[in-house]
Amino acid sequence: MKKIAIDAMGGDNAPKAIIEGVNQALDDFSDIEIQLYGDREKITPYLTHTKRVTISHTIEKIDSEDEPVKAIRKKKQASMVLATQAVKEGRADAVLSAGNTGALLASGLFVVGRIKNIDRPGLMSTIPTMDGKGFDMLDLGANAENTAKHLHQFAVLGSFYAKNVRGITSPRVGLLNNGTEDTKGDTLRKETFERLSNDASLNFIGNVEARDLLAGVCDVVVADGFTGNAVLKSIEGTAISIMGQLKKTIQDGGFSTKLGALLLKGSLSQLKESLDYSSAGGAVLFGLKAPVIKCHGSSDAKAIYNAIKQVSLMLESGLMDQLTNEFSKESESND
Amino acid sequence: MKKIAIDAMGGDNAPKAIIEGVNQALDDFSDIEIQLYGDREKITPYLTHTKRVTISHTIEKIDSEDEPVKAIRKKKQASMVLATQAVKEGRADAVLSAGNTGALLASGLFVVGRIKNIDRPGLMSTIPTMDGKGFDMLDLGANAENTAKHLHQFAVLGSFYAKNVRGITSPRVGLLNNGTEDTKGDTLRKETFERLSNDASLNFIGNVEARDLLAGVCDVVVADGFTGNAVLKSIEGTAISIMGQLKKTIQDGGFSTKLGALLLKGSLSQLKESLDYSSAGGAVLFGLKAPVIKCHGSSDAKAIYNAIKQVSLMLESGLMDQLTNEFSKESESND
Repeated sequence: MKKIAIDAMGGDNAPKAIIEGVNQALDDFSDIEIQLYGDREKITPYLTHTKRVTISHTIEKIDSEDEPVKAIRKKKQASMVLATQAVKEGRADAVLSAGNTGALLASGLFVVGRIKNIDRPGLMSTIPTMDGKGFDMLDLGANAENTAKHLHQFAVLGSFYAKNVRGITSPRVGLLNNGTEDTKGDTLRKETFERLSNDASLNFIGNVEARDLLAGVCDVVVADGFTGNAVLKSIEGTAISIMGQLKKTIQDGGFSTKLGALLLKGSLSQLKESLDYSSAGGAVLFGLKAPVIKCHGSSDAKAIYNAIKQVSLMLESGLMDQLTNEFSKESESND
Repeated sequence: MKKIAIDAMGGDNAPKAIIEGVNQALDDFSDIEIQLYGDREKITPYLTHTKRVTISHTIEKIDSEDEPVKAIRKKKQASMVLATQAVKEGRADAVLSAGNTGALLASGLFVVGRIKNIDRPGLMSTIPTMDGKGFDMLDLGANAENTAKHLHQFAVLGSFYAKNVRGITSPRVGLLNNGTEDTKGDTLRKETFERLSNDASLNFIGNVEARDLLAGVCDVVVADGFTGNAVLKSIEGTAISIMGQLKKTIQDGGFSTKLGALLLKGSLSQLKESLDYSSAGGAVLFGLKAPVIKCHGSSDAKAIYNAIKQVSLMLESGLMDQLTNEFSKESESND
């Protein structure tokens, strides 16, 4: 039985969306057990299951405006903190929250803890591509500054994930850079390029440009946290702006425009679907001793369901043990 | 009379698109004189004007695969090099090319030269926003690594451009960061935030996120060259992917989908228009003694026309003199 600890109070639509996602996951996956942390009175009205689910009652919670590190230190009874504690103490195998990102990163780092020899966990998401296959990118902003060694570890982490969870035999790893030529980039990129080229365990395909990511140029994209964050937000912002503009021109248009939009409805929702991040699950704070999953603050039941499915896959694949083994091999000479 | 030197041989559609853009510009602007550098035999069939235009014949040209610095050193008779030489020697006021970006950056830096006290020129473009107003972003990749002082200078350059060329009275300057809070980012961002906050001549609105750029969150976006390049390419790549996907779903759709698309044609081309980079002119290599404009390699006649219009505005506004004055004030204490 896979035990998943869930912060029932995190996110804009909590606890309703969280619990509805949990209900659906309990329906579909018979080998999971859910531990809910949060306000029992607010949770029970939505919960349809009684088996394989427990509620650990707490009224304290971390708000989106809370200063992350301070919050996890002061709010020791917060739903998010209790959920990560359950992982630390071995009562749960993984933790999931749609709450304050910074606080979850801090809880992951300080409460769950890093895999030995991993210097910095990276935030990783599977980002949808136009061909429906998607790519994994990390770091998406867990770190403001990174070294080449961190980026090398991100490449290894991402490869393991793509292989184990997404079933890609030999994941193509690309280094996000300002050009595709081997010699491109700043000192960090040049040093990372060298490291990735020399790691025979990786299928490193070289430098990739942000322009080609959505066309599916590779399966794993390695970036420092600052750039990865900027690229992810650029993709999101552009997609939202274009879809919004399209909606607006249709609304402002006359009868024939509206009729056209009606006839195109299927195609447009298909497009919207292919841009839908929620179907790929949540972002993984990757490099910790157990899966720590951050769902988007605006997650609906479907997004929560998919994130639980993702955690379940991660636990099933033996990924965490493999990573622990892989990094335990790391000798000091690699530093 | 404003004298504009143009590399007639640079870009995918040269010299045809270049000359057609020149013809149109000569039609519309009576106060410009165009100096064309390139192969006379290939230029003349397209050129409809005889007045206010000269051809300096050369058959040498820099190719897109050429290594930039080597190319400008070895190909001394290349159309791009001769065009920048004309600026250096005072025979022209500005130079424009759709050729090899790296080579144009190198020519700008080494041949035209920097404005005194500007450490690093930045590549700047006006990027269209959904409300049609656009924003200026720099650096878009002229530099692989930047210091806070460079970023501060980019803010000043961008503000002057937005004021003089785009007519914005008090341009809102934003620092591209991984969050909007004042304390966000790496050392470079924190140091830059401090500098921009202390510069009373700027209308600094604080940190901005890549997600909000297309919504028009500010008029000037300051970024290091590596991140700016990644963000620009992410925006471009996402826009291209979405429009491509939309086209594909329509093509693959049945009769009603195609009818719908036909009825929506106006709205869709309006959307495409609002994403059209070419109407905003070229990218300015900004911080040099004269305007050096890089047009996209795939520029058509319209893009070239708009870039000439942009150069003309830059020359008319007295922007270059203002910048020279502004930076000549800079004392050593500012370092």
